[in-house]
Amino acid sequence: MPSDCEVRRRFREYGLKVGVLLPGRSNSITDVPGVRVGQVTLREGKGVRTGVTAIVPHGGNVFQERVPAGIAVGNGFGKLAGSTQVQELGELETPIVLTNTLSVAAGLSGLIEWTLRHPGNEDVRSVNAVVGETNDGQPNDIRARVITPEHVLRALESASEQVEEGAVGAGTGTVCFGWKGGIGTSSRTLEIDGEPYTVGALVQTNYGGHLHICGVPVDVKPPAQDSGDGSVMIVLATDAPLSDRNLTRLAKRAFLALGRTGSYMANGSGDYAIAFSTSEKARRYRQKLGVYTTADLPNDLMTPLFQAAVEATEEAVYNSLFKAQTVKGQRGKTVHALPISDVLTKLTRH
Amino acid sequence: MPSDCEVRRRFREYGLKVGVLLPGRSNSITDVPGVRVGQVTLREGKGVRTGVTAIVPHGGNVFQERVPAGIAVGNGFGKLAGSTQVQELGELETPIVLTNTLSVAAGLSGLIEWTLRHPGNEDVRSVNAVVGETNDGQPNDIRARVITPEHVLRALESASEQVEEGAVGAGTGTVCFGWKGGIGTSSRTLEIDGEPYTVGALVQTNYGGHLHICGVPVDVKPPAQDSGDGSVMIVLATDAPLSDRNLTRLAKRAFLALGRTGSYMANGSGDYAIAFSTSEKARRYRQKLGVYTTADLPNDLMTPLFQAAVEATEEAVYNSLFKAQTVKGQRGKTVHALPISDVLTKLTRH
Amino acid sequence: MPSDCEVRRRFREYGLKVGVLLPGRSNSITDVPGVRVGQVTLREGKGVRTGVTAIVPHGGNVFQERVPAGIAVGNGFGKLAGSTQVQELGELETPIVLTNTLSVAAGLSGLIEWTLRHPGNEDVRSVNAVVGETNDGQPNDIRARVITPEHVLRALESASEQVEEGAVGAGTGTVCFGWKGGIGTSSRTLEIDGEPYTVGALVQTNYGGHLHICGVPVDVKPPAQDSGDGSVMIVLATDAPLSDRNLTRLAKRAFLALGRTGSYMANGSGDYAIAFSTSEKARRYRQKLGVYTTADLPNDLMTPLFQAAVEATEEAVYNSLFKAQTVKGQRGKTVHALPISDVLTKLTRH
Amino acid sequence: MPSDCEVRRRFREYGLKVGVLLPGRSNSITDVPGVRVGQVTLREGKGVRTGVTAIVPHGGNVFQERVPAGIAVGNGFGKLAGSTQVQELGELETPIVLTNTLSVAAGLSGLIEWTLRHPGNEDVRSVNAVVGETNDGQPNDIRARVITPEHVLRALESASEQVEEGAVGAGTGTVCFGWKGGIGTSSRTLEIDGEPYTVGALVQTNYGGHLHICGVPVDVKPPAQDSGDGSVMIVLATDAPLSDRNLTRLAKRAFLALGRTGSYMANGSGDYAIAFSTSEKARRYRQKLGVYTTADLPNDLMTPLFQAAVEATEEAVYNSLFKAQTVKGQRGKTVHALPISDVLTKLTRH
Repeated sequence: MPSDCEVRRRFREYGLKVGVLLPGRSNSITDVPGVRVGQVTLREGKGVRTGVTAIVPHGGNVFQERVPAGIAVGNGFGKLAGSTQVQELGELETPIVLTNTLSVAAGLSGLIEWTLRHPGNEDVRSVNAVVGETNDGQPNDIRARVITPEHVLRALESASEQVEEGAVGAGTGTVCFGWKGGIGTSSRTLEIDGEPYTVGALVQTNYGGHLHICGVPVDVKPPAQDSGDGSVMIVLATDAPLSDRNLTRLAKRAFLALGRTGSYMANGSGDYAIAFSTSEKARRYRQKLGVYTTADLPNDLMTPLFQAAVEATEEAVYNSLFKAQTVKGQRGKTVHALPISDVLTKLTRH
Repeated sequence: MPSDCEVRRRFREYGLKVGVLLPGRSNSITDVPGVRVGQVTLREGKGVRTGVTAIVPHGGNVFQERVPAGIAVGNGFGKLAGSTQVQELGELETPIVLTNTLSVAAGLSGLIEWTLRHPGNEDVRSVNAVVGETNDGQPNDIRARVITPEHVLRALESASEQVEEGAVGAGTGTVCFGWKGGIGTSSRTLEIDGEPYTVGALVQTNYGGHLHICGVPVDVKPPAQDSGDGSVMIVLATDAPLSDRNLTRLAKRAFLALGRTGSYMANGSGDYAIAFSTSEKARRYRQKLGVYTTADLPNDLMTPLFQAAVEATEEAVYNSLFKAQTVKGQRGKTVHALPISDVLTKLTRH
Repeated sequence: MPSDCEVRRRFREYGLKVGVLLPGRSNSITDVPGVRVGQVTLREGKGVRTGVTAIVPHGGNVFQERVPAGIAVGNGFGKLAGSTQVQELGELETPIVLTNTLSVAAGLSGLIEWTLRHPGNEDVRSVNAVVGETNDGQPNDIRARVITPEHVLRALESASEQVEEGAVGAGTGTVCFGWKGGIGTSSRTLEIDGEPYTVGALVQTNYGGHLHICGVPVDVKPPAQDSGDGSVMIVLATDAPLSDRNLTRLAKRAFLALGRTGSYMANGSGDYAIAFSTSEKARRYRQKLGVYTTADLPNDLMTPLFQAAVEATEEAVYNSLFKAQTVKGQRGKTVHALPISDVLTKLTRH
Repeated sequence: MPSDCEVRRRFREYGLKVGVLLPGRSNSITDVPGVRVGQVTLREGKGVRTGVTAIVPHGGNVFQERVPAGIAVGNGFGKLAGSTQVQELGELETPIVLTNTLSVAAGLSGLIEWTLRHPGNEDVRSVNAVVGETNDGQPNDIRARVITPEHVLRALESASEQVEEGAVGAGTGTVCFGWKGGIGTSSRTLEIDGEPYTVGALVQTNYGGHLHICGVPVDVKPPAQDSGDGSVMIVLATDAPLSDRNLTRLAKRAFLALGRTGSYMANGSGDYAIAFSTSEKARRYRQKLGVYTTADLPNDLMTPLFQAAVEATEEAVYNSLFKAQTVKGQRGKTVHALPISDVLTKLTRH
């Protein structure tokens, strides 16, 4: 079993790859210009193994300058807050916050506080905060509900282009296929009609099934039982100018990647994907009324973006597993890191 | 009881009105520029009381120049063909055909034939024909399935700005609140941000409940029992440049009008609304690839259009009832026309 | 204008009625056996005009003994938390809490706390709390976010069969058609196949449009402008043994009642309906695994329940308006009570 | 390239396997008791390469003895008829017919004819026929529309437990990942709470992407370009007593299998899954009114069935490819069979 101090590298650093499209510069959701990620990791005493991950779509006032967005529900056994308004209006008016199942309230409070405080939002009386979650209640004493709105504010304020992966932020206490999961990210670049675009994915992995890596069944059994329950949150960003409808379609493709990793979308796994576009040509300004013109990529050109979404999501899952260290938590519960060397052997032999 | 030769006028010709917005020039769905309606009425022998109504969104090649569109399902106990593709792609690529429940196949064949034949469509190998229906099986011998694709082609080819109402076209054999229903239409005009827009509605009424006209319960009981079952198809057109998402929202408002007329959306009533925009600024051209710009009315300005949709749909229902003559059909079944004078007395006294 | 001390009676006490079915004993959602409602009203200083309303489906452990449930989204411009899980699993595992838009987090925290504390729930690590809201930011200083989880616990713990209506609980600061709205309730009884059933509705009215009462346009203009925005939450309960699918269909019918009252489901109005069945024959026990048998009312018998849902919802809206007193709030903002005598005159003359 | 007379075996006959659950006796959807499949294959002249596949849920009167059912839309770019009623009522009242895109009308006519003729259905005036399609317009002269209602009747009447695979029935002219696709089937058996159940899948494969078999990228390029467009219809049957909601969830899992085979759900690929339960304890009888009791497997026990659906669907896809012979069609268009020996080499080396 790997120890806590083991150096763990990203999936691609072992010479592995997924799909055929090329990743962006950092192979991260932040390769999509403007997107930033902030995280707060809580590891305290024997029982606190949890945290917050915030994905900020751009550097401006997100409430006033909204991004088109879509949400796909793979398995709705989850507590995603804010979903109906995103589906109805086709836009995000806050960043996305991920945390644990019993801390969605703290996520909402933090996002609302952040929005109300933002200069220019003095008259705002309604905020659709989007907060997703997975259940880290194996190593984490989730009933203690230690996440506060301040943690959420701190995650939002610390957002940058650097994305730490593994057992950090909202992934601090998650379990994926019986191994330690967490936060993972990846990106893909492509060209459509001569224009370059990027699709980035960030995942919070806490789901299960029968783990496959690059299609190969990883029959190294985790010491713990894997029921497949747990959940996964997937966030997709792109700079392609997509309608909210095509963003919803893009989000739906992320579940194909889950299938590739061996998920059955178990009954108890709340599986959600949120996709947004950072294209300034598709942005929506709260104050500008009247008919406006918006850029739109037609349906017929969506396929390469769909492919990018699948590839980036699959690799983001692997990164979450490859980067996550073993975590010891409440009541002696240890969630072991994926034994990378065994996996590599398996992949080579196959 | 009114006789077959009675002159029946439209709702508004009796000095009645619905809502506060003004109708367009003809108080018809064809007030939306470019929209045309064609109908074929079949009354033969004792048992044939059925027909076809076609709504054509514009005068060009609808397959090549698509209109954004949305569909709302009030009660899905119906056989609307083509719905999933409209919802997925947000567009209509054919006119809309309405007919009876067991003739959807003829509707599809006719629409496909019409599309394949259209100059410029020689390479077309996939057509998403949209065909709605209600069940006219009370006066009509629906099991005989007399509608043919040729009837559908004839309806499409005869489309014009004149819309006959009452017991015609796809409304020839329908029953509404126990009275003779049929085809009705209405429109509303409004201004948003200085721009004039029109919303038009066309309905095929075959549903029931507890009839209210202008809010007044019309407790003149029809001779026949009304189970509330039956269905209603609602088509909304507008020249406002709306996204498919906002067209879906517009379509949803039509059901509020059903509520106003006394519907409970009975179990057996398949209630659907389809909305499309004829705005050339929002049109989608099959051959033009690459990112395009499209006009979009923002969410915050939708309310007046929602109001227009409710008002036009409610009045279209009344027109279908006011214009429909008594129909005698199979096995001695007579569906009586709404006794307008009794209704007027009722409305005056109230 | 009515003064704060005016005695205001329920709609039916003025000799008015809606529909044809008979109300239950208290004409309240609590006529459905087992259902209880608890409320906390906050009126403090010049700016606090808000509160909490909790609807408890039965007296047992709701998390362990779940009720089948469905949710319908009329207009998703709202912050309803918990919706995707109800839709996915077809059940409620907590009571329903209503509050103001910026206090959904407090609602979640309170419901989760209440559930975790409940004897028998010591091992629970996941709770799908259902919290709806409307925006009371006209008289209420909503940005102050004064609702705490303790208020929610108090509402839950004080639940009883008595339902106070008007400017109380989550309706303390709401505005409906420009007049003071609030909490309203009503019920209907009916028989299906020889069995008696009850359908109850509770509404939190904060929406607008063109007010109609019993179909009559109430053209007594409110002193304040009504944009139609605002939202309405509708909760339906029944003791009929319905599947989650048929509960979703039941919930959808509530919007027909909104249409009858003059709503256009304005862009800014988040309109939601949640329906649940208290039938013990349809209850779901968390601990009992294995195939179980459940009672189900077939689709073909749903229509009378649909009618009851429309009638009860419409009357609940009127009760919310008839019972609500004038409220003076922040920054001199007064929301006037509906002038009942003027309305009665209007209804008589019509 | 394989010749037309080459013997082609099923996937598993080459010693390959998918997943961990065991197939049923025939590794076919007809392992689910009562399910039968009938097919008509049309190969005429140079241009006719199409057909019909019918899946019959049980041997009784399907209209009078309905099976609970659910539909999941992966990508709605398709013409599936009958979907809204299945979703609204949660049941199938006809068999499922698959054919080509421009022949849905013939499918409807045939199914309606079959239903109206069925003894006991003399009073039936409404039929919700379910007809799916994929576009076989590469080898097949699809614009000729040669399928007639009689072909559909023949497919229905010839239904048996034998399921021919490959380029037959509705799969006669389909293309999958650039290779010849077609009809494939598979099944899985499992135990839940001591009870044995079977899940069977039947697919009509006409989609694309980047073909993977058992996770291995099959980089043997087809001679023809693969855009990924095309569509796939997936039918799932089980004898587990599932609610329509859980059948919808089961259907959704089929798309995970598409992901495993290398699909991106390309823009032009209409991807649908329909699931039904043959359990007599969950059957719905049209004539029996009043509250009835139905068996239901609880949510918490669904995961093994989800796994079975993924495994059976994946293997059914491989069977469709392994069994399909090269097809020469219109305008010299040849769709080559998957070169099995090259694939086996690839799989061995990997």
